[in-house]
Amino acid sequence: MNLRRKKWNTARASRKDERVKPDYSLYLVTDRALARGRPLVELVREAVAGGVTCVQLREKQLGTREMLAEARALLAVLRPAGVPLIINDRVDVALAAGADGVHVGQQDMPLADVRRLTPRGWIVGVSAESLADAEQAARGGADYIGVSPVFATPTKTDTALPLGLAGLRAIRAAVQTPLVAIGGIHPDNAAAVLRAGADGLAVVSAILAAENPRQTAADLRRIIQETQA
Amino acid sequence: MNLRRKKWNTARASRKDERVKPDYSLYLVTDRALARGRPLVELVREAVAGGVTCVQLREKQLGTREMLAEARALLAVLRPAGVPLIINDRVDVALAAGADGVHVGQQDMPLADVRRLTPRGWIVGVSAESLADAEQAARGGADYIGVSPVFATPTKTDTALPLGLAGLRAIRAAVQTPLVAIGGIHPDNAAAVLRAGADGLAVVSAILAAENPRQTAADLRRIIQETQA
Repeated sequence: MNLRRKKWNTARASRKDERVKPDYSLYLVTDRALARGRPLVELVREAVAGGVTCVQLREKQLGTREMLAEARALLAVLRPAGVPLIINDRVDVALAAGADGVHVGQQDMPLADVRRLTPRGWIVGVSAESLADAEQAARGGADYIGVSPVFATPTKTDTALPLGLAGLRAIRAAVQTPLVAIGGIHPDNAAAVLRAGADGLAVVSAILAAENPRQTAADLRRIIQETQA
Repeated sequence: MNLRRKKWNTARASRKDERVKPDYSLYLVTDRALARGRPLVELVREAVAGGVTCVQLREKQLGTREMLAEARALLAVLRPAGVPLIINDRVDVALAAGADGVHVGQQDMPLADVRRLTPRGWIVGVSAESLADAEQAARGGADYIGVSPVFATPTKTDTALPLGLAGLRAIRAAVQTPLVAIGGIHPDNAAAVLRAGADGLAVVSAILAAENPRQTAADLRRIIQETQA
């Protein structure tokens, strides 16, 4: 199986002249609460084997020390696969672990502050819950924009109203920045989300709560390849 | 009133040859939930006017953006007074705000990782809930050790059993690092805590929940000066 995945390499990314663009097309966001007791590292390993191209560690309930340990454990799996690890919210954890970037929401550290604290070549993604958020993130130089939520989702309870495919299309028309759609995405609606302008599909429960995360990742991967062909 | 307070200055602290030792003697730890609706910045301003020598921003419930804004607001009050601001747990918030240091508990980022991420001259304090914790923090080069809790306290619910004055004395006998005692400290037991070997008294509710935080700080300040005389 050809994953058509460009390998991510932080050292190369930091030299602007040969910057490799990260592949956001199948973007897994973690939530240990959905793993039903299975170790997160094993689920991520399976998901990557199925075709996940980018992983975000998002564990709001973990203490800092435990989150740092989890980040390091994930990096041991992701580095050999050439898949970048992005840390939600915690710039300090990302720096200490040697992750590839950080994802910040509208209540997290402002993008400009994140850039001042982090090295060149770092991936910084920003959540947008509206067209105005997305335009601001694009102006600020976000590497990608997490469009959230596209559909209603059970895995986050503090989110805004769903933007829908129409909202995603409006953001696509307004900004050039890569868009990663999140919220209620699964194999049955994945193609429609991509056709509405998303560069990537972010999933949480569709993979982490699946009986067979590798198979579900491979299903999504196939849809992405067919839609982008 | 002579506060006998050496002014803290980050720029000087970073030059080792003229390093000013921070004054931990009256160390205020914040908790907005105890402020009964009064703005935290105003309470801190009053507490510093009463003689507080060091402030730690500890707000576990705040989002990152709000915590960063609070840190900046506190710095605007503390810088002119020469009082250092230390941030609980969040190295990234401390760096972004330009605070003077960070305080880490046993579940937060390990001391060695914090040192790698932060500039020379930064204050890094470590919580110790046992003699073994304190010895490890001292070996690791903590700038001060927060001995926690000395007495039972209503303001933290996740703490270990109180160490008591005997536990504090045992730690004092074992390490040279400055000790800041926390947990249930108020004007009636402050002198006993200092005589047991504490270099500083950390207080939360005794000042933040007081009718007159400035007066309570001044009362504690006077006890410290009388005991250390």
